[in-house]
Amino acid sequence: MTNERNTEAIKRLYSISEDIYDQLESGKIPKMVLPLRTKANIKFDNRSQVWKYGSMNGVRSAKKVKGAMMLLRTSYMLELIQNMIETNKSSTLREAYYISEAWGKAKFNSQDESNLLAEDLEIVTDCLREDFKLRPEENGAHIIGDLNIIETDRKGKKKALNCRDDVGDSGYGIPYNVEKEKLELKSTSAKFVIAIETGGMFDRLVENGFDEKSDGILVHLKGQPARSTRRFIKRLNDEMGLPVIVFTDGDPWSFRIYASVAYGAIKTAHLSEYLATPSAEYIGITASDIENYDLPTDKLSDMDVRALNAELKDPRFQTSFWKGEIELMLKLKKKAEQQALAKYGLDFVTDTYLPDKLNEFGILRN
Amino acid sequence: MTNERNTEAIKRLYSISEDIYDQLESGKIPKMVLPLRTKANIKFDNRSQVWKYGSMNGVRSAKKVKGAMMLLRTSYMLELIQNMIETNKSSTLREAYYISEAWGKAKFNSQDESNLLAEDLEIVTDCLREDFKLRPEENGAHIIGDLNIIETDRKGKKKALNCRDDVGDSGYGIPYNVEKEKLELKSTSAKFVIAIETGGMFDRLVENGFDEKSDGILVHLKGQPARSTRRFIKRLNDEMGLPVIVFTDGDPWSFRIYASVAYGAIKTAHLSEYLATPSAEYIGITASDIENYDLPTDKLSDMDVRALNAELKDPRFQTSFWKGEIELMLKLKKKAEQQALAKYGLDFVTDTYLPDKLNEFGILRN
Repeated sequence: MTNERNTEAIKRLYSISEDIYDQLESGKIPKMVLPLRTKANIKFDNRSQVWKYGSMNGVRSAKKVKGAMMLLRTSYMLELIQNMIETNKSSTLREAYYISEAWGKAKFNSQDESNLLAEDLEIVTDCLREDFKLRPEENGAHIIGDLNIIETDRKGKKKALNCRDDVGDSGYGIPYNVEKEKLELKSTSAKFVIAIETGGMFDRLVENGFDEKSDGILVHLKGQPARSTRRFIKRLNDEMGLPVIVFTDGDPWSFRIYASVAYGAIKTAHLSEYLATPSAEYIGITASDIENYDLPTDKLSDMDVRALNAELKDPRFQTSFWKGEIELMLKLKKKAEQQALAKYGLDFVTDTYLPDKLNEFGILRN
Repeated sequence: MTNERNTEAIKRLYSISEDIYDQLESGKIPKMVLPLRTKANIKFDNRSQVWKYGSMNGVRSAKKVKGAMMLLRTSYMLELIQNMIETNKSSTLREAYYISEAWGKAKFNSQDESNLLAEDLEIVTDCLREDFKLRPEENGAHIIGDLNIIETDRKGKKKALNCRDDVGDSGYGIPYNVEKEKLELKSTSAKFVIAIETGGMFDRLVENGFDEKSDGILVHLKGQPARSTRRFIKRLNDEMGLPVIVFTDGDPWSFRIYASVAYGAIKTAHLSEYLATPSAEYIGITASDIENYDLPTDKLSDMDVRALNAELKDPRFQTSFWKGEIELMLKLKKKAEQQALAKYGLDFVTDTYLPDKLNEFGILRN
């Protein structure tokens, strides 16, 4: 449904068009100014603990054919977004790319181009892609736990749901737009949120009733989490005051999943403050766990080793905890999956591993 | 929750153990007889229109170390399944593999081995893996539409849900076990089921309200569909008498998705009659669609061409429709995605493409 955020987005997008129009009318060659989206202009902001853009700007001028094409595409895109908001439609990023087939010469050459333009518009307007009615492919992340929400559905109907009692065992599917106009967070008895990388482990915690036994909300990250999943976690942290714990496999790629939940990712640096939860804590699987619990492991691949070495230089991993764990993993030359805890039976993770760890963090008291 | 199917599974698994025990007691070297799981022993059954095992058998005898190991593993696995059923637990196939870490020499060398053993036990007992409380990783397929179901949840509580009115816009998540002891299909006003390959197109049909406008149940296949998704579709077809339509991308891999929904897959040949819906019809994207609708396309890769040529020899594609479409695609050297229909706007698929096609099949009357 169209809401205030969409109306505001139209207003801001409109002013981009007005600006181009004004330049043309006053006889100037039109241009658009944008923050430079290069690695050199993305910095880890120590104060807010998230990635942010620096102050370098780039210019897209119609002086050159390429720049003129980009301005033409931008105009078409603004029209598409306006139409979608007015007719209460949304489109996937893939559809937006195909829609441009009808734009003649302004047609995108690849989906990368249309995705980047959507991100540019986010940066210029300080709106979210979701406000423009653009969304990614369905991602399928779920939550389960005692959380009361109100979802405004596709027909504008408000549905009150409890994310434990009113859903099947697969949980509540996180929609692509989780802003409060779409999804209100009403109340919860939960004491914390645990974000889980794999579906197998999410299902384990669900089956073992960990949400009820430990008063937690279980969120399935489904690998590298979608924006909607990260935003949802951020809102649970911000609005409900719930601490967030991240539980992943023990390998360099999973460490990055944690980092993107906690500190944001380079690709979405312009949205870090919306998406990142800097207070999120990493619970495991750590390299120390591999030793302490004698877990079944796989050997690190060359790519794993390179990724760990890159993490040693990544500003998000500059704590003694992370340096120690990354160096230990490099020394052990081994990685382990969450489900490896099943070595000790199906209840070990919920009866022993997680309670012990949550106790360390002061979240559960044994 | 433990149900009659689980109890029956225990009984049948128990008789495997008894058989081994009896052989040992009468001084024989124990063995197990299984249908041979080679391609030569899998045949497309023209009468039932699905893949089935032939009559060739193989023997696993403890005479050789490898066979003895397999019998030992089988015994451990039987015990694991019995324990899970008794304690009302289930495990992912990955967990089952890790659990074997505690089985000493009987430990599986890889997850392939444990997966294959689970399938062997299905074949010998004529039960389903789900009856053994073994399940795959969460797969995240969803349905949306006017369908009333009763799900027995993890605590044994029966939850009545309408898969349109009682769920969020992401729909109802299909659980891993969809047998009637877990999931009762109560009633529906729908006239047909449409199974959709991609999340983007599923969301398009949801947003456009295609389930209501056309009285359909929308099922998201999420690529090559999981067993639970195929079984769910089969039950909608069998028990509710609903015709099934499959809507995928237009490429050789998507044709195989259709074939596995309709005729089953080699890997699950022993379950074809549970999983396959031979009356399912393929709606598109066809090679003819690429021409008729002048769709945006990609070039066929060498792998695509090889897959199409293999399909020309596949018994599941021996109709004049499929031969014609596959040959046309080879001639065009092009493939197209479902979302390419967005070239004509976001409503084209639900206002024009699908109604026209469903009309051809006699399902919707314009």
